Amino acid sequence: MTKGQETRRAILEQAAQVFSVRGYFGASMDDLLQATKLTKGGIYNHFASKENLALEAFDYAMELYSARFKEFLAGKRNTRDRLLAFTTLFRSVVDDPMLPGGCPVLNTAVESSDDTNPALRERAQQACDDWREFIVRTITRGAELGDVRPGTDAQAVASVMIAAVEGAMMLHKLYDDKRHMYRTTDHLVAFIESFLQEKTL
Amino acid sequence: MTKGQETRRAILEQAAQVFSVRGYFGASMDDLLQATKLTKGGIYNHFASKENLALEAFDYAMELYSARFKEFLAGKRNTRDRLLAFTTLFRSVVDDPMLPGGCPVLNTAVESSDDTNPALRERAQQACDDWREFIVRTITRGAELGDVRPGTDAQAVASVMIAAVEGAMMLHKLYDDKRHMYRTTDHLVAFIESFLQEKTL
Repeated sequence: MTKGQETRRAILEQAAQVFSVRGYFGASMDDLLQATKLTKGGIYNHFASKENLALEAFDYAMELYSARFKEFLAGKRNTRDRLLAFTTLFRSVVDDPMLPGGCPVLNTAVESSDDTNPALRERAQQACDDWREFIVRTITRGAELGDVRPGTDAQAVASVMIAAVEGAMMLHKLYDDKRHMYRTTDHLVAFIESFLQEKTL
Repeated sequence: MTKGQETRRAILEQAAQVFSVRGYFGASMDDLLQATKLTKGGIYNHFASKENLALEAFDYAMELYSARFKEFLAGKRNTRDRLLAFTTLFRSVVDDPMLPGGCPVLNTAVESSDDTNPALRERAQQACDDWREFIVRTITRGAELGDVRPGTDAQAVASVMIAAVEGAMMLHKLYDDKRHMYRTTDHLVAFIESFLQEKTL
């Protein structure tokens, strides 16, 4: 990396932390300057606007999630292990957070409704689409392999699994209590078992 | 109501809508003035600060939830019907929203972490405590009546049910698609049946 690329990366790392805790609207330019220890000009050298910085900080935050998810998926080939990796990811996020403010998809979805920040909302939709597609694809493939009970609604499983872990992130954030995530992922493990065929158990 | 009380109530109604869509940080004084059609002085006549107004607007929003929940609970005496009323409440919130921005507990929990707004966060904790206590009390009483399978963890059920509906609210907000809430509450109905004894079915 060149010096400029290094600075850019350092700004993103710090900005991702600030936006994670304070949100897009809650994070002021002063917060960002304090965190990055740069001047306004120093930041604008690399990012055209606060919105531009927020969009790239969102992508950076999602890269952290994707990298960890990839780790948990490594070597997992069967339907059950791949679905469980998704619950393990969110359990690990409360045990060993990558960002102080929790899940960027949750934060962005709640903060950027409708007209308040359409570009950021689109990013959160895309990230959530990726998770839904992962779950739907895993179940569809699992059904073809005979791992999944006939009649299992892959889209419904995706909605339930994502709703449950994101709501548990909210409870974790609200109470600073990991038990909500533990209980919710335990429930999802039982749910996953309920639509798998015996042979994969 | 006196004229003053009427104005106060009208400010709260409008402010609750604004905070619901824009959040505490996202809502500017200009947004509040535009919505209430009042001057700054007109608002400050009734509320000491934006924070004070936000706290009371939160209470007002939760009153709307409580009133509707009470309707759904009316005449429901058995364990199953009372637990299902909680899922019906959230299903109704996407079918017939009381506020444009979704659930105030979700919005506040996500926006007011830690040091950013402790008073508002405490309000959201209290509201969420009320829901948890309702679920725990219903299950504990149900276990005494023989309606609930032995070994059912009431606290775990409360975490799972609240996480699921709040996460479904997030998905509904993100995609503007009610199906996430329908699928999630359908799942919760099946979950509730799974820990009830045959006799209440």
